[in-house]
Amino acid sequence: MSFSDAPPTAAPEPYARLTHRMREISMLGAATSALQWDAETYQPKKGVPWRAEQFAFLGGLRHRMFTAPEIGDWLKASEDHGFADDSTEAANVRGLRRDYDRATKLPAELVEELAKTKGLAHLAWQDAKKHSDFARFRPNLEHIFTLSRRMADAYGWEGSRYNALLEGWEPGATVAELRALFDSFRPRLRELLAPALEKSRSARKLEGDFPAAQQAAFNAEVARAIGFDFDAGRIDVTAHPFCSHIAPYDCRLTTRYDERNFAVSFSSVMHECGHGMYELGLDQDAFGLPVGSAESLGLHESQSRLWENQVGRSREFWEHWFPRAAHHLPALRADGWTPETVWAALNRVSPSFIRVEADQLTYDLHIMLRFDIERRLLEGELDVSDAPAAWNEEFERSLGLKVPDDAHGCLQDVHWCEALIGYFPTYSLGNLNAAQLFAAAKKQDPAIAAGLARAEYAPLLSWLRDHVHRHGAGLSAGEIMRRATGEPTKPDAHLAMLAAKFSAGVE
Amino acid sequence: MSFSDAPPTAAPEPYARLTHRMREISMLGAATSALQWDAETYQPKKGVPWRAEQFAFLGGLRHRMFTAPEIGDWLKASEDHGFADDSTEAANVRGLRRDYDRATKLPAELVEELAKTKGLAHLAWQDAKKHSDFARFRPNLEHIFTLSRRMADAYGWEGSRYNALLEGWEPGATVAELRALFDSFRPRLRELLAPALEKSRSARKLEGDFPAAQQAAFNAEVARAIGFDFDAGRIDVTAHPFCSHIAPYDCRLTTRYDERNFAVSFSSVMHECGHGMYELGLDQDAFGLPVGSAESLGLHESQSRLWENQVGRSREFWEHWFPRAAHHLPALRADGWTPETVWAALNRVSPSFIRVEADQLTYDLHIMLRFDIERRLLEGELDVSDAPAAWNEEFERSLGLKVPDDAHGCLQDVHWCEALIGYFPTYSLGNLNAAQLFAAAKKQDPAIAAGLARAEYAPLLSWLRDHVHRHGAGLSAGEIMRRATGEPTKPDAHLAMLAAKFSAGVE
Repeated sequence: MSFSDAPPTAAPEPYARLTHRMREISMLGAATSALQWDAETYQPKKGVPWRAEQFAFLGGLRHRMFTAPEIGDWLKASEDHGFADDSTEAANVRGLRRDYDRATKLPAELVEELAKTKGLAHLAWQDAKKHSDFARFRPNLEHIFTLSRRMADAYGWEGSRYNALLEGWEPGATVAELRALFDSFRPRLRELLAPALEKSRSARKLEGDFPAAQQAAFNAEVARAIGFDFDAGRIDVTAHPFCSHIAPYDCRLTTRYDERNFAVSFSSVMHECGHGMYELGLDQDAFGLPVGSAESLGLHESQSRLWENQVGRSREFWEHWFPRAAHHLPALRADGWTPETVWAALNRVSPSFIRVEADQLTYDLHIMLRFDIERRLLEGELDVSDAPAAWNEEFERSLGLKVPDDAHGCLQDVHWCEALIGYFPTYSLGNLNAAQLFAAAKKQDPAIAAGLARAEYAPLLSWLRDHVHRHGAGLSAGEIMRRATGEPTKPDAHLAMLAAKFSAGVE
Repeated sequence: MSFSDAPPTAAPEPYARLTHRMREISMLGAATSALQWDAETYQPKKGVPWRAEQFAFLGGLRHRMFTAPEIGDWLKASEDHGFADDSTEAANVRGLRRDYDRATKLPAELVEELAKTKGLAHLAWQDAKKHSDFARFRPNLEHIFTLSRRMADAYGWEGSRYNALLEGWEPGATVAELRALFDSFRPRLRELLAPALEKSRSARKLEGDFPAAQQAAFNAEVARAIGFDFDAGRIDVTAHPFCSHIAPYDCRLTTRYDERNFAVSFSSVMHECGHGMYELGLDQDAFGLPVGSAESLGLHESQSRLWENQVGRSREFWEHWFPRAAHHLPALRADGWTPETVWAALNRVSPSFIRVEADQLTYDLHIMLRFDIERRLLEGELDVSDAPAAWNEEFERSLGLKVPDDAHGCLQDVHWCEALIGYFPTYSLGNLNAAQLFAAAKKQDPAIAAGLARAEYAPLLSWLRDHVHRHGAGLSAGEIMRRATGEPTKPDAHLAMLAAKFSAGVE
C-alpha cells in the first residue's frame, strides 16, 4: 500500500517524491500535534486513556512512513544528484539524511521498550516526587539510563555517549565544548551573585491582586505589539506553558496565571511568543522539511529568552509599558508601583530550589548542575543511587542552599523520566545565544535600539527573521550564530547584560 | 506496508484482524474529527488553507486503509465463519460489509471529482446566496446532481436512484415508504396550523437582555441535570451548533448565543445534548465498529429532538426550571416572565422562510418540500433551472408565504452544495421517532413521567440507553423502533403532541 497517489512534477523525481512524502508525513505529524495541544487544553478527562492509544498508533504509523525503504532510496538518489552545497535542496537532503539515519538506527524493540519504560517511569516519578521519595523512582531511572546508553550505542558516538543524545537536540554540539563553555562561565556567574543579592534586597516582590482576565488583556496587547500574529496563533491556559507549531500559520501558545503575581503569566507569554515568532518566521511552505524546521533547541531557546529577558525585563520596556499595564491591572497604581519598581521586581535575584522559578542569574547554575549529573550518570561515572547526594552537595556548593528533600532536588524535573537526556544544556545555550544575538542586532542596526526605546519591535523582529528564522535548519546553529554575530556561542554578552543590571558599580 | 504490527489474539483470526484494523482506522478518523472540531472552534484563520489539504490527505489515507483488499478477505472469511445471527460479531460483519461495499463501489475518479465539485459548489453557493442569485449556483448544482446520479448508479438501486443515496443516511428506508409516510402526515399538519397560529398570537416573543455568560451558566446546569457528562464532553461556541463524538468518552457539543433571545442557545444545547448523550450511550469500547456506531440519522435526530422538544419545550420542564433560569438570567423576572409565558414563547408557531429557525409545527413542512424537490431533481422529473420556481410555488401552497428571493428560498441550505442528497427526510423521521419513543417510554415505565415532573431525568435516559443507544447499528432503525415502541415509525405520536399543545380544545 502506498501513501501518495500522484507524484509531484518539478525537480528531479526522487527528490520531488521525497519532499512530497515528507509533506504527507507532516500532515500526520500535525494531526498528532493538534491532538497533543488539545490534550493539554480542552480534552475532557475521560478521553485521556484512549487518546494515549491513539498517540501510540499515530506515532507508529508516522515512524513506519518515515523509515520506509523507499525514503532511503530517494535520499540516496537525491544525494547522488549533486545539488549545489548551498542550495535549499542540499540542505533538505542533509537534514533528512540525519533524521532518517537516526530513525532507522534505533531497533524497533528498543523504541517500544523505551516507550513503555517512559510511561512507567513517568508514573513512578510523579509518585516519588509527591512523596519526596527517590527510592520509588530509582529502578525506573536506572532503566531509563540503561536504555539511553543503548540508544547512544545504536546511534554511534565518539568521545562520549552523551554526544549521541545531545545530537538529537543540539546537532553538532559536544560534551567537551559544552564543559569548556560552562567552566568558563560558572565562576563569573558566581562572582555576580553577591552584588546581585545585595541589589535585590531592596526590590519588592511583585505581589498584588491581579485577576487572570486583566493579565490576559495586558499580555495580549504586548504579544501583538512585539509581533505575535493572532491570525496565525492563539494563547490558551495550561498547567505548564508551551508553544506548539501545530501546522503552517498555526502556532499555539499557552500560559498560566498566578492571580497574586502577574509576572508568572507575563514572562511566560513573552517567552512563548519568542518561540512562536521563531516558528512563524520559518518558511511556512517548507513545513515538515529541514529548511522549514528549527535547527536546535539552543537556538529555539535563544528566541524565547531574548523576548522574555532582553526585551521584557529591560528598563526601557517598563518605562513604555507601565501605563498600559496599570490600565489593565489597576492594582499596580493602587499599590504604588512605578516603572522602576516593577523593573526591579522582575529582575530580582534570589537563589531557590526550583529551576523553572529561578531568576535570570541563578538559572544557568541549575542547568550546569543537571548537565554534569546526567552526563556522569550516562557515562557510568555516577551511580543512579548516588544521584540525590551528588545533586544536594553540588547544589549547596553552587547556590548556597541546603536542599531540604528530593522533591526540591533531583526529583523536580520531568526530563529524566521522559528520557530527555542531553536536553538540559540547551537551556543555557539559549540564554547565551539570546544575549549575543540581542547585542549584535543592536550593534548592527541602530534602528533596533531606537525602536526598542519607542516600543517599536518590528526592526528587532525583522533582524531576527533575517539572521535566524529564515535559515530554518538549512544552516547549523553554530553557523547561524557565527554569521549573525561574528562569533560562536560565548558567555560574554550574557554576563555583560547581567553585570549591567547587577554589578555594584553600574546604574 | 502494513498498518498493524501485532495481530490481536481472541476470536477467529480474520475477524480479530478486521476489528483490530477498524480500531486503527478509527484512530485516524478520530484525529480528523478532532481537527474538524478545532477548525470550527479555535483554529486561527491563517491555518485554514493548509488544513484543507490535511483533511484531503487524511481522508484519502483512511479511505485507502478501509478499502484495502485484505479488509475484503477478512470480511469474507468472517462471513464464512458463521457467527450466530444475533451475535455482536455478526452485527459488526453485516455493518462493515455494507460500508465496505459502498466504499469500494465508488470509482476513485468519481470520489475525486465529487470532492472537487463540492469545493467549487460550496463557493458558488455562498456567492449565489449572498447575492440571492440562483443563476450563479445553477451550473454547480447541475453538476452535483449529475454526479449524485452516477454515485447512485455505482451503488446500485431498485425503484429509485434516490434509494441508493438515502441508504447512506437511513439504511433500509425507501422513497416509496417515505412518500407514503409524509403524504399521510402533511394534511394533518396543515390542519393544525390554523389553531396553532391562533394560539400563538397571544404568546410574547422571547426577547430581552440575556448576556451569553448567563445563558451558558443556565444551559450547563440543565445539560448536567439531564445527564450530559462534562467529564466526557464539553460545550463550545460556533456559528452553527453541532455535536461531534471525536473519540470514546469524548463528545464535543457547540452552541451559539443570541443575547436578545436565550431560546437560541438553550434549544440548541438541549438538541446537541440529545445527540451527545446518544453517542456517549453507545458502547464506547466498540468505537469505530458498527455496534458502537449510530445506525441512522433518523434515529440520531430522534434523540436530539426528544430532549429539545418533548422535554425542553414541555410545560412541566418550565414549571421546574423557571426559578433556575431566572436565577441565571435576571432579565426574566425584571421583564415579568413566568413559567407559563416562557413555555408559550418557546412553543410559538409562526411560519417563516428559514428552516433552521422554524417552529416545531412548520418544520416538517420545510423538510417535505425539500425531499420532494431533491427527489424530482435526482430522478430527472424536475430540471435544476426550474427548482426555484417549484420551491416558491410549493412553499406558498404549504406555508402560505410568498418567498421574496432565493436566499430565503432554495438557496438557504448548505446540503445540496455538499452533495448531501437524501439527508433531509431524516430530520422529519427524527421528529416522528422522538415523539413515538417519548410516548412509549412514558407508557412503559411510570417512573419516567414521575421523574420528569420532578426534573429527574435518569429514568428517561436509562430507558433510551436500554431501548435505543446500546444497540448501536447492531439493529436496523426500523427494528429498534419496533422493539422499543411496538410499531414502525408513524406520525401519530408527533401529531398528538402538537395537537395537545395547539388544538383549540386542549389545554
